Amino acid sequence: MSRPGPIEYSDASPEVRAIFDDIKRTRNIADVNNFWKYLAHDPAGLRRTWESIKQVMAEGALSPLSKELVYVAVSVTNGCGYCIASHTASARKAGMTDAMFAELMAVIGMANETNRLANGYRVPIDAAFDR
Amino acid sequence: MSRPGPIEYSDASPEVRAIFDDIKRTRNIADVNNFWKYLAHDPAGLRRTWESIKQVMAEGALSPLSKELVYVAVSVTNGCGYCIASHTASARKAGMTDAMFAELMAVIGMANETNRLANGYRVPIDAAFDR
Amino acid sequence: MSRPGPIEYSDASPEVRAIFDDIKRTRNIADVNNFWKYLAHDPAGLRRTWESIKQVMAEGALSPLSKELVYVAVSVTNGCGYCIASHTASARKAGMTDAMFAELMAVIGMANETNRLANGYRVPIDAAFDR
Amino acid sequence: MSRPGPIEYSDASPEVRAIFDDIKRTRNIADVNNFWKYLAHDPAGLRRTWESIKQVMAEGALSPLSKELVYVAVSVTNGCGYCIASHTASARKAGMTDAMFAELMAVIGMANETNRLANGYRVPIDAAFDR
Amino acid sequence: MSRPGPIEYSDASPEVRAIFDDIKRTRNIADVNNFWKYLAHDPAGLRRTWESIKQVMAEGALSPLSKELVYVAVSVTNGCGYCIASHTASARKAGMTDAMFAELMAVIGMANETNRLANGYRVPIDAAFDR
Amino acid sequence: MSRPGPIEYSDASPEVRAIFDDIKRTRNIADVNNFWKYLAHDPAGLRRTWESIKQVMAEGALSPLSKELVYVAVSVTNGCGYCIASHTASARKAGMTDAMFAELMAVIGMANETNRLANGYRVPIDAAFDR
Repeated sequence: MSRPGPIEYSDASPEVRAIFDDIKRTRNIADVNNFWKYLAHDPAGLRRTWESIKQVMAEGALSPLSKELVYVAVSVTNGCGYCIASHTASARKAGMTDAMFAELMAVIGMANETNRLANGYRVPIDAAFDR
Repeated sequence: MSRPGPIEYSDASPEVRAIFDDIKRTRNIADVNNFWKYLAHDPAGLRRTWESIKQVMAEGALSPLSKELVYVAVSVTNGCGYCIASHTASARKAGMTDAMFAELMAVIGMANETNRLANGYRVPIDAAFDR
Repeated sequence: MSRPGPIEYSDASPEVRAIFDDIKRTRNIADVNNFWKYLAHDPAGLRRTWESIKQVMAEGALSPLSKELVYVAVSVTNGCGYCIASHTASARKAGMTDAMFAELMAVIGMANETNRLANGYRVPIDAAFDR
Repeated sequence: MSRPGPIEYSDASPEVRAIFDDIKRTRNIADVNNFWKYLAHDPAGLRRTWESIKQVMAEGALSPLSKELVYVAVSVTNGCGYCIASHTASARKAGMTDAMFAELMAVIGMANETNRLANGYRVPIDAAFDR
Repeated sequence: MSRPGPIEYSDASPEVRAIFDDIKRTRNIADVNNFWKYLAHDPAGLRRTWESIKQVMAEGALSPLSKELVYVAVSVTNGCGYCIASHTASARKAGMTDAMFAELMAVIGMANETNRLANGYRVPIDAAFDR
Repeated sequence: MSRPGPIEYSDASPEVRAIFDDIKRTRNIADVNNFWKYLAHDPAGLRRTWESIKQVMAEGALSPLSKELVYVAVSVTNGCGYCIASHTASARKAGMTDAMFAELMAVIGMANETNRLANGYRVPIDAAFDR
């Protein structure tokens, strides 16, 4: 098989189970989503990724909702189907309304457009911005 | 010359000046930034882009700051130097603190990383997300 | 039909069959994969692409395994589903173990993350690197 | 030095000189541009890339101008500064007017925007398109 | 539901119906494609996007066919499945033959390749191009 | 200032100095490169990124050289100027010869090309690969 499949909780090692437990507890969910089940083939990577996500996505100077909006923006720009689906769901859970979703999409679209206008016209950075 | 240069206010047509004036009034700035001066070679495109940006970036269900964070996230993901510089400045103006900037960067980095883990492990979308 | 479908060996012109035969012989496989069957609508492009791939992916200063790892890294970064699947399989054939796969994914993820941190912080290139 | 520098005609091997000569003759230019001088460190790659470009960019079912517009569109989308500059110049040489340039930029921008709207809204492919 | 579904004509508001009608009339089609049905959750965004597309894709200094080729090139480079399918169909409608399609693909592929060679060799922009 | 500048060792907090010291010791270098000096404004992010990089890039099932080649491939594909420069230098340090560099570039270019051919021809994944 060219790629390892998902590892379910019942088949997981104690090390992986402990991480799954922490994900479930932190997010208050019954089971971890597929992303973690695939990553579980690499327990060190699973732990590192989870610890990083937990730290990065926590309430801080930015709210969890703001962070999820940014996550969706990156995923949509990159065209990552899995991440668009999962983080749109997370953003909903964090409070994204239909109106916010529509505005988010509009901003993402506009930024992707003007990024290319700036590239194509080779606009030099204004002195006021370049520092 | 392979690409048109910037058009300054003093050299602009009345149509372009009217748009420049609206940009300056809306944003309360003394002069428009380079992006608009280059786009001014295409008055129809200049008008369309400005009208779209004005509509999309206005206060709505999302705050101007939230929108600027998303704009920076897209620009950083695409690696658009001009847009990173100009929208980081806009985000600052809209209230982004140093702590917010650091968290924004961390979220952008993490999303770009996990987008590729999801791609590479070919993680199927969970039924709960796929709708 | 908006896009040409696959061309099977039995329906292929002598020119295309000769290229298919060379692919099968070089890779020691019973049939060519879909990529080549779709490209076969453009015999000149098929030949050019196959001759280039054969030359570029051959044993050289880098091993075929190293080259397949790089191919997977590009495909994962771009989010090309077909190429991720086919080159993960090629990398397996060239000797990629489960442990190597996990490390490959981790490096790809990390590079995509730090690429954006460098973009977002607008880090200037160190004099020692810039030559 | 971390990367090989350019190879000028006067320092080039006979093999590289022959390719440079063919580039200059085909394009009717006095000297090759930097791209080829850097690639010259890999004579096999130089030959393969040049032979491919020459074949792909030649007059065919599409005009050289149409092909250059496509080349610019890809380069702008990817944000490749070198390629934007060199292929905008090539497109100019092939007949791109200021008005065409402005329309090209507008189409590129719009496509990059709607690509993300389609991603973000996860629009399913219409049956009429999916074949 | 994490994302809004499509809005059919029969369920649409008068405002959305008017835009759907204009799309159908302009393109001479019986029903709008999915893209517009999903966007219809955001009537302001639907209107803005349609008005922009209508203006940008109209016959001008560039032909509708040239513009569709550019649209496909951007969509293929970004890997947007929906847009590749829909704009390949539009390009067909605008007159793209099988031979043009094959050449288009070859140019897109080549540009994506040389974009990375220019990046990787860090080729400095020739003085003749950089203005 | 819209973005924080670099933090030199002499101005760094004890926490940041400790991380800088670990980077210098691990890599056997006299000073850390700019990337770390900019990231130092976010000590938690600096620590997390460094700990992750140290773990991910260490000798494992893949050699440090193989990992650096993959890092360069990602950076070139994304067009991250800083990362291309710094990781080409790292790859050199890890043993990359001129011949390896040339082959690496050729593979990266080819993968970026065929990724788009697969996208554009909408090649369905072979049953043999899709698992």
